[in-house]
Amino acid sequence: MVPPPAPTASVTAVYTPSPVASPVSSNATLSRHSVSSSKPRKAITLESMNQNLRKADYAVRGRLAIRAEELRDRLATGETLPFTEIVNANIGNPQAMDQQPITFFRQVLSLTQYPPLIDSDHASAIFPPDALDRARILLREIGSVGAYSQSQGVPYIRRSIANFISERDGFPANPDDIYLAGGASSAVASLLCTICNGPSTGVLIPVPQYPLYSATLTIENATAIPYQLDESNQWGADIGYIGSVIRQTLAKGYALKAMVVINPCNPTGSCLTPDEIKEVITLAAENCFLIIADEVYQTNIYRGQFHSFKKMLRELQRDFPGKYDHVELASLHSTSKGMVGECGQRGGYVELIGIETEVLEQLYKLVSISLCPVVTGQILTELMVNPPRPGDPSYALYKQEYDTIYSRLAERSESLFKAFKEMEGVSCQEPFGAMYLFPTITLPPKAILEARRRNEEPDEFYCMEMLESTGVCVVPGSGFGQKDGSYHFRTTFLAPGEDYVNRIIAFHQEFLRRFK
Amino acid sequence: MVPPPAPTASVTAVYTPSPVASPVSSNATLSRHSVSSSKPRKAITLESMNQNLRKADYAVRGRLAIRAEELRDRLATGETLPFTEIVNANIGNPQAMDQQPITFFRQVLSLTQYPPLIDSDHASAIFPPDALDRARILLREIGSVGAYSQSQGVPYIRRSIANFISERDGFPANPDDIYLAGGASSAVASLLCTICNGPSTGVLIPVPQYPLYSATLTIENATAIPYQLDESNQWGADIGYIGSVIRQTLAKGYALKAMVVINPCNPTGSCLTPDEIKEVITLAAENCFLIIADEVYQTNIYRGQFHSFKKMLRELQRDFPGKYDHVELASLHSTSKGMVGECGQRGGYVELIGIETEVLEQLYKLVSISLCPVVTGQILTELMVNPPRPGDPSYALYKQEYDTIYSRLAERSESLFKAFKEMEGVSCQEPFGAMYLFPTITLPPKAILEARRRNEEPDEFYCMEMLESTGVCVVPGSGFGQKDGSYHFRTTFLAPGEDYVNRIIAFHQEFLRRFK
Repeated sequence: MVPPPAPTASVTAVYTPSPVASPVSSNATLSRHSVSSSKPRKAITLESMNQNLRKADYAVRGRLAIRAEELRDRLATGETLPFTEIVNANIGNPQAMDQQPITFFRQVLSLTQYPPLIDSDHASAIFPPDALDRARILLREIGSVGAYSQSQGVPYIRRSIANFISERDGFPANPDDIYLAGGASSAVASLLCTICNGPSTGVLIPVPQYPLYSATLTIENATAIPYQLDESNQWGADIGYIGSVIRQTLAKGYALKAMVVINPCNPTGSCLTPDEIKEVITLAAENCFLIIADEVYQTNIYRGQFHSFKKMLRELQRDFPGKYDHVELASLHSTSKGMVGECGQRGGYVELIGIETEVLEQLYKLVSISLCPVVTGQILTELMVNPPRPGDPSYALYKQEYDTIYSRLAERSESLFKAFKEMEGVSCQEPFGAMYLFPTITLPPKAILEARRRNEEPDEFYCMEMLESTGVCVVPGSGFGQKDGSYHFRTTFLAPGEDYVNRIIAFHQEFLRRFK
Repeated sequence: MVPPPAPTASVTAVYTPSPVASPVSSNATLSRHSVSSSKPRKAITLESMNQNLRKADYAVRGRLAIRAEELRDRLATGETLPFTEIVNANIGNPQAMDQQPITFFRQVLSLTQYPPLIDSDHASAIFPPDALDRARILLREIGSVGAYSQSQGVPYIRRSIANFISERDGFPANPDDIYLAGGASSAVASLLCTICNGPSTGVLIPVPQYPLYSATLTIENATAIPYQLDESNQWGADIGYIGSVIRQTLAKGYALKAMVVINPCNPTGSCLTPDEIKEVITLAAENCFLIIADEVYQTNIYRGQFHSFKKMLRELQRDFPGKYDHVELASLHSTSKGMVGECGQRGGYVELIGIETEVLEQLYKLVSISLCPVVTGQILTELMVNPPRPGDPSYALYKQEYDTIYSRLAERSESLFKAFKEMEGVSCQEPFGAMYLFPTITLPPKAILEARRRNEEPDEFYCMEMLESTGVCVVPGSGFGQKDGSYHFRTTFLAPGEDYVNRIIAFHQEFLRRFK
């Protein structure tokens, strides 16, 4: 639709009361209004609504997840299906599986929700002294969890986060650079809204990627520029190739604004090496784009070690004076992942480095329109970055719970990885980090034909068949992006037991047999 | 910027590994990259960022609020200023003042955060049995507050909300029509994102209005069409005049998608009569636009009674069969306002009536990209709509707390209203509802000249002078929209005591004297 030639009145338009009409004062007079049937019956239709939203895809909670909910409801009514439970391996939601929350975190959250508990006669019988102390400190700083905080987040909590980053990286961090958010997804939405300025805005996204990025860019009417990760090299980043994608992008006239890097990677589970990270930063320094480092899985590392973009940037700035000072970096973290796993609490933050002050003021305005991130999620973020330390009363239990969750995740990733290695026509990279495996599946040509006949992507067809026969819900690779002609699916390794793995194996054999 | 002629590769683009380049494997080789200084140094600048965001205004946390924070910090360092505390009358944030949370709500939230409390030996000494029961029920339905819920919200909570609406209106409500959200602001953002499709999209907004609406429409690149409320008639809606605004809007070629109505009104404190509401619905039925009914202040009523758009719509549908069946309505509610006042907990919902299923599917996709609203905010919403009932152990305390908060709000609105009535050059409509007064101020011509000299709006200048000399932070009328040449400010009546009122009176006298 073409916009009209001139805008109507501004918001401060002069009020011109209607000289004739007056408010109607009884129901009877309403009948004078005839509602014409020749007009369209609905204001908001698929054709008239936001066409960018319509184009966006978000497979993690897409058709398969909706079908899984239907099947769960049918099971709940007592219907007999080929399985007795739905396993939601489509989404990294550990506490919907058997993962328990960290006790200390929940104690402090409970106390801050109901401050009279802190001074009750029973408090010391129920709560360890460090939980009581922490709740007192946080309430002194915050006031009430029921009050809006500063839009950027509680200053005390931002200082805690800056301390955590300083300890993690060995380089100082600044509380003013931290923006709390209602989960990392919310931080990404604010960030992309700030930087995108129409279809000429190009943002590099990995393939495969977590579809938050492609979906948000589509909604923002910006252009996602895919760079394929190298499956043959443990889903690594081929820097030379990425450089050529950048050159092509610039040659086509795009304003290349940012590059998204997910490390550890969702969905592939791979981790970047320090050199790969520094190479990406060098590309950013040379070509002048913001790095969006999605580091929400930074503690979900099962082989090797996590290296933050922030630390690598500071090393480069130290080692090559002046060459990297202008680099812009956004580093994301979340309370939904790691050993915290508190998805429903919506905590997280973004650290913003090198962004111009005027732009930060605009971002601040954007986040203040939604007033503030949920305060309890901010508290949980504080607890995540400032957990009990050796010597604290709660340390032993914290350590035990943390280690148990960690080992369980590591074991489950291994056990699922082994199962995939042994399945015919399935291959899978070793699990380094995150909460997912992303195996390649070789689908029989007859299965591909059958999928096409149904107007479905072949891997979507495969995953739907898996759901219908096993109750296990995974996400087809097409939801994340993959090389043409290759097929994958993403599954979490959060579910307990071997049973669901055996159901996948049996389904897969039967599927191959059926389409032989 | 003109978009390039053709998009680059799709997300499923074929991966072409670079034939020559290989990942660099040592820091030393990084120096081969020369970071050219002729390129722009920053990717994200005020000029290259989202220009729609840049244009958006949000005065509630704008220049004055930022200055108030600076002054608060200076007081905290011991600096002597003309006042000893900052009063944030710029934002409806009751628990940042002296409003206490409802005990029952916080007990249940505390128990759901730390479930071992429920079965502890001390539980019955600390918590009433109905709080323990409610926590058990909610946890049985939700699992863990740390797990993502359904994107639309927990089904049990949506059923509770539907029951509440049915009881409130006397017409049945459907849980499938309810979408939980992280505060009503978040629901508004999702809704406007769904319906806006470029600058030809027109959305009617009241003047004055809560700037969430104008800001979000600007960010969405849609067009806000102002309709002035009638200050001379208690800020009522002049339906004949609104009809003429609609005709002009359609004549100019806009696709009129929605009309925002804030009732009780922020910032004016006025309430619509049942007839006014039915007239608005009739305009929507005739002209085919969505009504966005912001009803977050529905229990903040100090004179008269609240009438919901939903109930009025159902009455019209009953009384004029067929004429109103197609009407589209979004009704918003929140846990941040009313006697709950839990702003930091981010709870709320929108009920969507008459929207096409295909559009709802798109909205569902949008909300699932941010996964789910914070689960504790959902619980608080359940508690708000399903509080203790007569006969329940917690009822007496709940009733007492609720009534105390209510009377205090009513008293403070009266006392501030009286003060404004007696101030020279100030006039103010009676406070009917919400949390705000929006007085008109007649500014001396010399003050207006001084403001223009400083390149400020006259009411912004007045409010800044008030802040600097009293520590009371209010929001200038220009932040909400007002008739040209008229000046207002919005203040909450949440602050305790007479002291800040007296400071405003003294400032005002001095301001008039200074610019006489």
